[in-house]
Amino acid sequence: MAKTYQRSPLAPDTFPDLPVIDGLRLATAEAGVRYAGRRDVLLAVLSPGTTMAGVFTRSATRSANVLDCQAKIGADSDAGAAIVVNSGNSNAFTGKAGDGSVAAICQAVAERTGLPASRVFTSSTGVIGERLPHDRIIAKLDALLGALDPAKIDEAAQAIMTTDTFPKGASATVEIGGKPVRIAGIAKGSGMIAPDMATMLVYIFTDARIARADLQPMLNRLTDLTFNNITVDSDTSTSDTLLLAATGASGVDVTGHAVFEDALHAVMLDLAHQVVKDGEGATKFVTVRVTGAASDADARVHALSIANSPLIKTAIAGEDPNWGRVVMAIGKSGAAADRDTLSIRFGDILVAENGWVAESYKEADGAAYMKNQSLTIHADIGLGQGQATVWTCDLTHGYISINADYRS
Amino acid sequence: MAKTYQRSPLAPDTFPDLPVIDGLRLATAEAGVRYAGRRDVLLAVLSPGTTMAGVFTRSATRSANVLDCQAKIGADSDAGAAIVVNSGNSNAFTGKAGDGSVAAICQAVAERTGLPASRVFTSSTGVIGERLPHDRIIAKLDALLGALDPAKIDEAAQAIMTTDTFPKGASATVEIGGKPVRIAGIAKGSGMIAPDMATMLVYIFTDARIARADLQPMLNRLTDLTFNNITVDSDTSTSDTLLLAATGASGVDVTGHAVFEDALHAVMLDLAHQVVKDGEGATKFVTVRVTGAASDADARVHALSIANSPLIKTAIAGEDPNWGRVVMAIGKSGAAADRDTLSIRFGDILVAENGWVAESYKEADGAAYMKNQSLTIHADIGLGQGQATVWTCDLTHGYISINADYRS
Repeated sequence: MAKTYQRSPLAPDTFPDLPVIDGLRLATAEAGVRYAGRRDVLLAVLSPGTTMAGVFTRSATRSANVLDCQAKIGADSDAGAAIVVNSGNSNAFTGKAGDGSVAAICQAVAERTGLPASRVFTSSTGVIGERLPHDRIIAKLDALLGALDPAKIDEAAQAIMTTDTFPKGASATVEIGGKPVRIAGIAKGSGMIAPDMATMLVYIFTDARIARADLQPMLNRLTDLTFNNITVDSDTSTSDTLLLAATGASGVDVTGHAVFEDALHAVMLDLAHQVVKDGEGATKFVTVRVTGAASDADARVHALSIANSPLIKTAIAGEDPNWGRVVMAIGKSGAAADRDTLSIRFGDILVAENGWVAESYKEADGAAYMKNQSLTIHADIGLGQGQATVWTCDLTHGYISINADYRS
Repeated sequence: MAKTYQRSPLAPDTFPDLPVIDGLRLATAEAGVRYAGRRDVLLAVLSPGTTMAGVFTRSATRSANVLDCQAKIGADSDAGAAIVVNSGNSNAFTGKAGDGSVAAICQAVAERTGLPASRVFTSSTGVIGERLPHDRIIAKLDALLGALDPAKIDEAAQAIMTTDTFPKGASATVEIGGKPVRIAGIAKGSGMIAPDMATMLVYIFTDARIARADLQPMLNRLTDLTFNNITVDSDTSTSDTLLLAATGASGVDVTGHAVFEDALHAVMLDLAHQVVKDGEGATKFVTVRVTGAASDADARVHALSIANSPLIKTAIAGEDPNWGRVVMAIGKSGAAADRDTLSIRFGDILVAENGWVAESYKEADGAAYMKNQSLTIHADIGLGQGQATVWTCDLTHGYISINADYRS
């Protein structure tokens, strides 16, 4: 985290221009939670009338912050809200002291903003098991409140980074009834990424007006199509949090407007793909598409088995069109498969079918395809109509280098 | 496979002296299945009266050889048996041609030995999806039959290797009723290793007398305590096979003698540990012990979650006592856990308890411990009596190097 990692070759050229979201103000600060010389705390303040939805890691050892957010997220309130995020220390597995740190931060924000503590949400990301120096964060609150600005979302994306090599942002604007509705999101996460909301922090803001009772199920649906279908290393974090805040400041009620859900889906998918593209050590972005499975659930099991296989991920790193390892991963997944009905494609190239390599397949074609930076592995199981898509990256020397000495 | 990999630092100094098993004769040859200049075919011939037991990969895309062995293994026969193993080509996902290769080899052995084809068992290990040149194997059969020798088990251990960096053997001798009973086994496997009999070939021979109806359940029990509890990379092979042959030539009926089952257990555990110690790129041998889980099944889920976590395996490679990642792995496993009842030990060092780092723990102690070549991670879940032990290795640059260019 103090170290600077080489920017991912899959990173976008620049951070996108994100629209200002009415009803949202942000500020960042250098609190020195773990390392000096970088912004490591974010404060976001949301106007009265904001509705909040969230999804969280299902880890049995989730952090104090996550437990606190989960307890608060279900309540309706017109009071507005605040979000405090620190990087450098995850406040996970810090016992009762961790619960105390969360309470202290929420109380301090409440006192200074007039918000009830039940409307202050916190996230912490970084090393597990070390006491969070919450006093350093609280000491910066007055400065943060004095610096709140609607146009600071780029700094926010920077402040929440840990081993990320680039800040992640995405946005969409849709018109409903002739009026614009804006969505802007930021994310962090590059390792310990796996389904069930793994090691990511994601904050999405919109000026849409929508009731919590509609916003939460929409977020659940879209998470299952986006963040829950990405994997870097199959490891699930104790801190994953996605908060979605709808300020209502546009005055546009988006309830029942599919165009809004589609736009939110696009923002979430963009952010999810950026997390994969910043996968620790990643040099390839891989789409794994499974069709023809006995059910959608079976398709997802196969797709994740392919996407999490170290042997496939290393083969991709080596640009080796090793489709035999795809057969292996389908075979071991536990979901239904049949050697003789299976077919495998790399991009548009039919590689295997009828229980064997395809007659038309030329190894040189497969090898040439594997040189692309973005790859699609498509397995059709040949048993039914189930389908799923997941996204992952390759497994390289970079992953080992980053994770063999993360804490040093 | 043509390449020579650096010998694992965890390898034993020498191949052990294995006892001759009465009723077993072996021979090896250079058949050039994939690469020239090395022994790549093994023939083992077992005397009449031999009983056979076996366990096999549960992959849905298992090889033609495995399917054929599974169809044959359940039959009783007094005719003796033969085992043919080749390295370099796994004959997996080779469609109907793969089935034909197996049939051709079995038929050729049957013609030359007088054994029924139903008593000829074959294994193939190596690249998936390429047609097995079975004619090259058949062309060597006469020479193999002419060279059969009871004392060639060391050559046999060499012939079945693929990316292995050392041959693997283990033995035991027990006395029952004043007479010796001998067990000798060989194994190969170093990548694509995971529970459910992953990418391994194991052949164990004994001169014990025991009925198939007793031998098979004993093998199943012991496999669950040994080969099914090791993992290198969580990938499961399409070819895993363990064959156990009891020739009866000692004249000693071992039925119901616990001392025999204990000795067989020891041989299987020794071979299983050697497979882990030859894990691709391994520099550390790791025992993961989970106690206090809600059930034995839950304990195994936690233990495998720890043993398969890339973040834990890279931390071990980096000699980082990163117990926070152990908390993460327990949390994500899906089995029951509670942050506040959990305790974690590295060797004898209490690292974490009561939901936090232990008061007595000093980071310097953990760091010093991690420098050992053999490590034990012990997690007590604090919920019940369930326990399990699994064995794994670290994840290093060596794994990436070996697997990113295996086929080239």
